[in-house]
Amino acid sequence: MSAVKTAALPNPFALWRGGSLPDAVIAYETWGTLNADRSNAILLFTGLSPTAHAASSPENRDPGWWEQMIGSGRAIDTDQYFVVCVNSLGSCFGSTGPASINPGTGKAWRLDFPEIAVEDLARSGWEVMASLGVEQLSAVVGPSLGGMVVVAFAACMPGKARRLISISGSAAASPFAIALRSVQREAVMSDPDWRGGQYPSNAQGPRAGMRIARKLGTITYRSADEWRNRFARAPLGEQGLRAVQKAQVKLPEGFGPRFAVEGYLEAQAERFVRIFDPNCYLYLSRAMDCFELSSHGEPSEVLRRAGLTSALVIGVESDFLFSIDEQAWIAGQLDKAGVQTEFAHLPCIEGHDAFLVDLPRFDAAIRRFLNA
Amino acid sequence: MSAVKTAALPNPFALWRGGSLPDAVIAYETWGTLNADRSNAILLFTGLSPTAHAASSPENRDPGWWEQMIGSGRAIDTDQYFVVCVNSLGSCFGSTGPASINPGTGKAWRLDFPEIAVEDLARSGWEVMASLGVEQLSAVVGPSLGGMVVVAFAACMPGKARRLISISGSAAASPFAIALRSVQREAVMSDPDWRGGQYPSNAQGPRAGMRIARKLGTITYRSADEWRNRFARAPLGEQGLRAVQKAQVKLPEGFGPRFAVEGYLEAQAERFVRIFDPNCYLYLSRAMDCFELSSHGEPSEVLRRAGLTSALVIGVESDFLFSIDEQAWIAGQLDKAGVQTEFAHLPCIEGHDAFLVDLPRFDAAIRRFLNA
Repeated sequence: MSAVKTAALPNPFALWRGGSLPDAVIAYETWGTLNADRSNAILLFTGLSPTAHAASSPENRDPGWWEQMIGSGRAIDTDQYFVVCVNSLGSCFGSTGPASINPGTGKAWRLDFPEIAVEDLARSGWEVMASLGVEQLSAVVGPSLGGMVVVAFAACMPGKARRLISISGSAAASPFAIALRSVQREAVMSDPDWRGGQYPSNAQGPRAGMRIARKLGTITYRSADEWRNRFARAPLGEQGLRAVQKAQVKLPEGFGPRFAVEGYLEAQAERFVRIFDPNCYLYLSRAMDCFELSSHGEPSEVLRRAGLTSALVIGVESDFLFSIDEQAWIAGQLDKAGVQTEFAHLPCIEGHDAFLVDLPRFDAAIRRFLNA
Repeated sequence: MSAVKTAALPNPFALWRGGSLPDAVIAYETWGTLNADRSNAILLFTGLSPTAHAASSPENRDPGWWEQMIGSGRAIDTDQYFVVCVNSLGSCFGSTGPASINPGTGKAWRLDFPEIAVEDLARSGWEVMASLGVEQLSAVVGPSLGGMVVVAFAACMPGKARRLISISGSAAASPFAIALRSVQREAVMSDPDWRGGQYPSNAQGPRAGMRIARKLGTITYRSADEWRNRFARAPLGEQGLRAVQKAQVKLPEGFGPRFAVEGYLEAQAERFVRIFDPNCYLYLSRAMDCFELSSHGEPSEVLRRAGLTSALVIGVESDFLFSIDEQAWIAGQLDKAGVQTEFAHLPCIEGHDAFLVDLPRFDAAIRRFLNA
């Protein structure tokens, strides 16, 4: 059973970098109840690849990607808040994206899909809330790409959120992160099965390229220290061996996986390749590169106009994709903007993905902030 | 004019992990003069990709990969030392490797080449020195892969070096570095033009895969901080645009290079693809994963048996491929082994490649050590 609902965007939906989308929709899930004065809504944006299924619900009992963070008595307490998680515009889990049907042609958009910006993700998320009768959010929250979207939300939707939680996000992609994503995209586009974006289906698409992109992604989402503790130099175990055997792309034995860490990459890659649309991946990846808060004006002035009362910025010391310095910069600009800002500087060793793994630290920081 | 000489290895040359090579040779270059008592020889191992051309000479006036470090009055002073740089066994610049002709078949070895180990690189380098009449090295030196080879040299060639300089090397590849190299190899092997190793020539080989491997390599050789200073979010400049236009693999405009940092990756990748043999790359890459000093015994005991009088270990704080902790560990084991050890902990921001860029710091450390 699905908990996914769909909201229609204003038609056409004008895009930040030009062009517009006809008949666009955003998929979302909700938890908790909107209160009488509609003041208890929290809007949650996701990272690059998740669906809107952030937590289980009576309609879908499968654990969500932030299961331990959202629910009755959890840090994001559904007894108190009406929580909405959106699948990003441009993604492939119910929201309009390059894999959706272009109503003008009756065929999938693919590379005819217009360029999307992080700003479009922010505004389309807001439109879901407006469709639900919300006039102002209690808080807008997001990790990773979602952390960027939250910053874009502050810039594009002044007055629409009282509080903001940006987790391991960025106000402007660093050249290091751009370089990594550039290599990931090239891996997808260099795969002959990408066919200039015209692959017949995911199963017949650029699987080899998507595997490489996701393996590299997985490396950048974790940290050398975590892996030293977790895998050390252990050989490929039974689980890893099974992942390698099930893999859709076979590598010659001498150069294929031998170490446990390689089996882990294998499992991550295969899972991703089965579910994520390659063109959607390219569009969202490029959108991340191009986001730049300062394109909206002097950053602290832009953030002052956002009308926030308070903000929480969470950064992780071992995150080398969205560095702790970038988080400190966002917190500094919010502070300069006169927003009461807390900067949680977490010593987790799990890198960028710590928000999915080191839940006690994130729970404590978010719970304290939302209850303040 | 070439300065490259060739030394024959003992025939057959037995390999560390089993098997042997018939008629194998090592290419090398030399600078300075071996003194009467043959006591002033320095053996230099390279990183993964360079040739033996570490510095210019009357026979080849092109600048070498460590031009500013080797020469008359330089840190490695050729007025004082007889310096020999070897092209690694398994590479493709004159030394025997997978691209060489297998004398048994008259055809290139390709994947029939036996597995090589970092230990084989160490021993084959020593054989060059023995062929030149050297009985003991004044110093064995190497950066990156060369830094690993130097550690292997200490383990495999006891009594053959009085001093050791290991720069940004490793005594055992970390799971993080293994993961990165695993993805690089997969990019090469997933390229249909690799043809299971049977590509007709580099120009008709897995260029797309090699580009990805080298771009990722380039990212891991530098640092986020350096690139923030150097490229920030500048758009692709004229030089970058030229690199993109000259590229052998064309990417669709919307998702191709837009930022200066992407133009830099492009230039690095194209240069590498033209010169480096893909199978050689795979063999050397895998050899790095598999090296483990402790497979030779308790590390400090192994290093004690090496008979070194002194050692210099150089690490770079911003190196995230061969971390400063790994360098500290090597220095610690040498110290425990009773070797007079200096650990130079350099604050360079250029990451793993700092030894090629931040020359004043490396010059000072190496000069002081060699003159002590």
